[in-house]
Amino acid sequence: MPEVLFKVDLTKPMEEQDLPGHNRWHPDIPAVAAVNPGAMFRIECKDWTDGQIQNNDDPSDIRDVNLKRVHVLSGPIWVNGAEPGDLLVVDILDIGALQGAEWGFAGIFARENGGGFLTEHYPEAAKSIWDFHGIYTTSRHIPGVRFAGITHPGLIGVAPSHELLAKWNKRERELVATDPHRVPELATLPDPTSTVLGSLTGAEYERIAAEGARTVPPRENGGNCDIKNLSRGSRIYFPVFVKGAKLSMGDIHFSQGDGEISFCGGIEMAGFIDLHVDIIKGGMAKYGIVNNPVFKPGPVEPHYSEFLVFEGISVDEFSGKQHYLDAHLAYRRACLNAIEYLKTLGYTGEQAYMLLSTAPVEGRISGIVDIPNACCTLAIPTAIFDRDITPK
Amino acid sequence: MPEVLFKVDLTKPMEEQDLPGHNRWHPDIPAVAAVNPGAMFRIECKDWTDGQIQNNDDPSDIRDVNLKRVHVLSGPIWVNGAEPGDLLVVDILDIGALQGAEWGFAGIFARENGGGFLTEHYPEAAKSIWDFHGIYTTSRHIPGVRFAGITHPGLIGVAPSHELLAKWNKRERELVATDPHRVPELATLPDPTSTVLGSLTGAEYERIAAEGARTVPPRENGGNCDIKNLSRGSRIYFPVFVKGAKLSMGDIHFSQGDGEISFCGGIEMAGFIDLHVDIIKGGMAKYGIVNNPVFKPGPVEPHYSEFLVFEGISVDEFSGKQHYLDAHLAYRRACLNAIEYLKTLGYTGEQAYMLLSTAPVEGRISGIVDIPNACCTLAIPTAIFDRDITPK
Amino acid sequence: MPEVLFKVDLTKPMEEQDLPGHNRWHPDIPAVAAVNPGAMFRIECKDWTDGQIQNNDDPSDIRDVNLKRVHVLSGPIWVNGAEPGDLLVVDILDIGALQGAEWGFAGIFARENGGGFLTEHYPEAAKSIWDFHGIYTTSRHIPGVRFAGITHPGLIGVAPSHELLAKWNKRERELVATDPHRVPELATLPDPTSTVLGSLTGAEYERIAAEGARTVPPRENGGNCDIKNLSRGSRIYFPVFVKGAKLSMGDIHFSQGDGEISFCGGIEMAGFIDLHVDIIKGGMAKYGIVNNPVFKPGPVEPHYSEFLVFEGISVDEFSGKQHYLDAHLAYRRACLNAIEYLKTLGYTGEQAYMLLSTAPVEGRISGIVDIPNACCTLAIPTAIFDRDITPK
Amino acid sequence: MPEVLFKVDLTKPMEEQDLPGHNRWHPDIPAVAAVNPGAMFRIECKDWTDGQIQNNDDPSDIRDVNLKRVHVLSGPIWVNGAEPGDLLVVDILDIGALQGAEWGFAGIFARENGGGFLTEHYPEAAKSIWDFHGIYTTSRHIPGVRFAGITHPGLIGVAPSHELLAKWNKRERELVATDPHRVPELATLPDPTSTVLGSLTGAEYERIAAEGARTVPPRENGGNCDIKNLSRGSRIYFPVFVKGAKLSMGDIHFSQGDGEISFCGGIEMAGFIDLHVDIIKGGMAKYGIVNNPVFKPGPVEPHYSEFLVFEGISVDEFSGKQHYLDAHLAYRRACLNAIEYLKTLGYTGEQAYMLLSTAPVEGRISGIVDIPNACCTLAIPTAIFDRDITPK
Repeated sequence: MPEVLFKVDLTKPMEEQDLPGHNRWHPDIPAVAAVNPGAMFRIECKDWTDGQIQNNDDPSDIRDVNLKRVHVLSGPIWVNGAEPGDLLVVDILDIGALQGAEWGFAGIFARENGGGFLTEHYPEAAKSIWDFHGIYTTSRHIPGVRFAGITHPGLIGVAPSHELLAKWNKRERELVATDPHRVPELATLPDPTSTVLGSLTGAEYERIAAEGARTVPPRENGGNCDIKNLSRGSRIYFPVFVKGAKLSMGDIHFSQGDGEISFCGGIEMAGFIDLHVDIIKGGMAKYGIVNNPVFKPGPVEPHYSEFLVFEGISVDEFSGKQHYLDAHLAYRRACLNAIEYLKTLGYTGEQAYMLLSTAPVEGRISGIVDIPNACCTLAIPTAIFDRDITPK
Repeated sequence: MPEVLFKVDLTKPMEEQDLPGHNRWHPDIPAVAAVNPGAMFRIECKDWTDGQIQNNDDPSDIRDVNLKRVHVLSGPIWVNGAEPGDLLVVDILDIGALQGAEWGFAGIFARENGGGFLTEHYPEAAKSIWDFHGIYTTSRHIPGVRFAGITHPGLIGVAPSHELLAKWNKRERELVATDPHRVPELATLPDPTSTVLGSLTGAEYERIAAEGARTVPPRENGGNCDIKNLSRGSRIYFPVFVKGAKLSMGDIHFSQGDGEISFCGGIEMAGFIDLHVDIIKGGMAKYGIVNNPVFKPGPVEPHYSEFLVFEGISVDEFSGKQHYLDAHLAYRRACLNAIEYLKTLGYTGEQAYMLLSTAPVEGRISGIVDIPNACCTLAIPTAIFDRDITPK
Repeated sequence: MPEVLFKVDLTKPMEEQDLPGHNRWHPDIPAVAAVNPGAMFRIECKDWTDGQIQNNDDPSDIRDVNLKRVHVLSGPIWVNGAEPGDLLVVDILDIGALQGAEWGFAGIFARENGGGFLTEHYPEAAKSIWDFHGIYTTSRHIPGVRFAGITHPGLIGVAPSHELLAKWNKRERELVATDPHRVPELATLPDPTSTVLGSLTGAEYERIAAEGARTVPPRENGGNCDIKNLSRGSRIYFPVFVKGAKLSMGDIHFSQGDGEISFCGGIEMAGFIDLHVDIIKGGMAKYGIVNNPVFKPGPVEPHYSEFLVFEGISVDEFSGKQHYLDAHLAYRRACLNAIEYLKTLGYTGEQAYMLLSTAPVEGRISGIVDIPNACCTLAIPTAIFDRDITPK
Repeated sequence: MPEVLFKVDLTKPMEEQDLPGHNRWHPDIPAVAAVNPGAMFRIECKDWTDGQIQNNDDPSDIRDVNLKRVHVLSGPIWVNGAEPGDLLVVDILDIGALQGAEWGFAGIFARENGGGFLTEHYPEAAKSIWDFHGIYTTSRHIPGVRFAGITHPGLIGVAPSHELLAKWNKRERELVATDPHRVPELATLPDPTSTVLGSLTGAEYERIAAEGARTVPPRENGGNCDIKNLSRGSRIYFPVFVKGAKLSMGDIHFSQGDGEISFCGGIEMAGFIDLHVDIIKGGMAKYGIVNNPVFKPGPVEPHYSEFLVFEGISVDEFSGKQHYLDAHLAYRRACLNAIEYLKTLGYTGEQAYMLLSTAPVEGRISGIVDIPNACCTLAIPTAIFDRDITPK
């Protein structure tokens, strides 16, 4: 087992850990450890909510979750020699649950507190608990399915530079300003409430808490990409924006479907990540990797060969209004079509919604130019069900 | 070889074929043939432009293409016993090129005549010709790549009912009305110019030509879905909207990347499709398949295990403006990131654009709930290149 | 379509073709065509028996087949510039059925005339006819299964040198001499009966017919390897033993399981093969490819993810006698175990035997050192059945 | 983490463990724990040699290994309700290394002490140490390769009945009697030396030690099958021969190639196995599973799409003698062909031999009926190398 650089105690909140992590992005959050290129090490992570959700059948913790606390991240890790303009090469060597914590949760957030992709259809909070059986998971809340996890960090990223952070805050403020009272909100802006910044206190804490970007969206630094294929064995090439790169991570998902549609949507878990890091000097310019990370998936993703595929187009399901090449809407329609199908198998809409969010479904932008309809597809691997689900 | 129900002569335009097809959707276009459930048959198809593009190095035919002629379709085929409410089960048993026509084309439409996904970046017409070598293709216009085709009908669908057609026309007219002079246009509305409706003439032709929906977008009837995975061996379940179902198809692609981003984007070809049809009586209600077709992909898709994956988020590349969970924009950014990478390998932007449009790249909606950024990914199979393209 | 270098008329025996092929291996059989490195061309092939088997339900043609006529091959093709010591690089670009001949056969040879892997268990002749439906096949003689073909030339090889031919004849004669009256025979030796040698006649014919090696076994030149994975898209590196390389091929199988256990065991068909050839000068020494061809499989093999796997060990099923690391016996036991299982699903032993021989089953040497038992495994893709076949 | 039913202390030999396991097969070895159908539990295992091999560069421990001590197994586990005639359904939920022991070894046994598949070619002892990096492994003794483990128990099986044990001993004695002084020996017979039988002592120990079958070969009970695909996520159906089934296991391999050709051939490790067990009453007769276990592989095997494939035929490499359909010999020739190829890349023969034994190579019985040559193939996934190894 590689050396553990970041350890968590699941009984304590992030700020009380021996080595506290953080839940905002900022270049000035101090690193908790430094490693050399070539190093291999382990990082332990709490679940993204910092332990707010319990292993029981009551969704009230999902309903009442404090979203200002998310995502609690482990790090930052300083990589010696990394400088702006380099590529930080990160191998995800392994990921797993912590001993004694072999379970995870998925949920539907209430429309008033977070919402999700289908919040207009499913506005009430719901929860499903997933037990891990080695590579497999099942849920007592969604019977008849068992699948292998495509475990991944929902969130992994490097620190932004001051300039990049300023750009984020500006553009997101401008978006929120277009509809400041929307529910759910259009973006989460810096908010000192519930902010954790390692062991910082005092004026420096106050300054950074006021400036630090929220961790919800993926951005140029990687961050909360929620890419299910960034799983075991992947190699990621991150653009480096600050000295030391400052790598942080968390939000581990035992499994997730493309889109992570229910928002609390992967099977959320605490766990560990084993990493190897290296540097490609000057790699950003050399390879044109300047806007976002690039990665190579690993070779042990769960492997299916039969799928049932649902299509969706960009016509609003309520009004029938035609939208222009709207892939978001097209994917929503594909998901709704799949849910209608799953209902004919006996699932409730909420169960089907959480299943699409957690199982290794493939969400594709199949056609994006055939005006005015985008065509998105959702492919469900049929082997996750304990019976044949194809039409006869 | 199964019986050929629809034959094409590549030297003649669609209206001069012995059995002319059609290029609009309308319930009253007469069927050209009738088959029983259980039938197996072959349909030949012209390329979607009806032969407007030549196998040469001059993109002026792409620039000047008459888009009112698209898509020339083969059909409709009447399936005996199919009635509204049923599911039409269509197996795509095989697809291939016509003898002597073992080539295809991809192109970038000029912004003023069609445009495409990246038309703000690549507004000029361009063309690439692809030669087929059995399962493989190469292009003299994009050196250094060779890949196996994931051949599929870009367009396959059943006839709409009168009610459904009226709904389409209404919603699309309303969209166009929001910005009637936009270039490219927001949608293509019914237009008698260049309309082909089988052997219809006279008043009936005039009526249908005025009402018939254009074939550009995918809709409830399937249609121009441009789903690359609807390839050899797939089984499709179509909702049936009219008596006889009236199945039509065309727009064969030798290969296509997810999104078909350059619009004239798959490797467009003439060819044949071998089909088997069957009916599930009352299947629409039984399986909740009411909005769009559902399908099972076949087992012989080209199979890759190594990919380089590019991410994109919903921030506008020109203005830096933050958009809200816009998967269209996020996929555009992922494509642009990939193009920048491919440029470091020596490709021009146009070559890279056409490569992403034609090669079997995977376009995924990876995260769709992490406000305000959608995260889309574009995965390029590295084995299509004649050298190692990963960063070192 | 590439130029057809070798054409067949299915109504005529091989010696009456416009350009007759051959059914023995010999360096002096004249080439029928010459190509340059870089050439792409099509070769048509008769089925391996030269049309002796009919599409009907009567196995008497299998029982009475003239095995001295096999395998009728198309070629030899002379490759300009190829010399002993080079590698001949052959791409199998495509393979398919001939128009109007979309069917194949598999059979169990009678013990007295050919036999097969399980001839002690199934000594009587049997036949199954397989109809092709695009990429799929079904048999009216083995209900409940449908699978995609992994089409390949059972036989493809280059001409031996005189020295190599002499070595073959010597070693095979010595083997036969150890038990000259065995039924089935231990090897097939040169035999002028039914020999076809292109358009040769007279003394040269007589000489070569007396010396020419039978085509039954795979040897250093490739030949009748019956490797199912040598399918569409494969690239083969052949050692070159004679000037011009002299490439020949035939024995096309629409599909075959590993081992081709029933001997007439793949789904035998007439068909075409599209090829591309090239040369690596001096490649034999450079890459150490001196004993047998090496190949890279193509990317469009039918692709399954669920298998039921049967094990076998090297203990004789009749006597219970322990054999020493005998993989032949272990694979036989694995096949017999699979057949017993398939019988519980309602198949006869003969049906199951032919199914294992034709469907894309994987036969593996799993353990070969655990004295005294070899462990071989046979993996059946479960998706080829129209129902769930796993134990419950 | 499931309850640990069998714990090992790597610093102590098997007989000194708190709960000692066993290294012989016998129905009367007492069970160490009992579980109900439906139970999930963890079993820890020592490496198969009981810790005789050190993590260093000196192969003398391989040379001098005491093979009478192998394989030290964890168990037997009694499954309540299991009776002869049932099927024991065992799910391998997970497998991994023990904390602090993230390494393994492979070796070539000296001809005089064990030997291996190519012992006539490589008669001297050799050793390679493999370090685990999450899902990947590398060896300082075989540079330039890295691959993901297809981790599996080389040995897992149920207890034989007295009758079955007697049959084993009889048939193996008869084999040894045919050449009792052969080096390596033809089979390993019961031998009290170094026998461990749980906590048994006294007369019962003596009796069972004299009768107990060695664990080297796979047999009707499963046992040392060394099937690499029996990896994470597999479900095995064992025939039950004694009350309680008495399941035992060990010989964990981090990775292994088909055949495990160097005998000490997988990457041998200590580790844990998480299991789930169930029973199908009367399943042996119902499914015809009477001779050997049957299994379904799991969905997370390392997944490759490009291979270089080497063929071999049954002609002896020393004498040139033709053997009759000898798959053992054909696979040996395929391995030797691959080794010659790997030598041109700079590897020694011993390195190449150990690489084929440890990396996830596929060994197939491709053709087994083409008299007199069996054709076996060895497929090496090219992605395990840090450079392109295909011929150019």
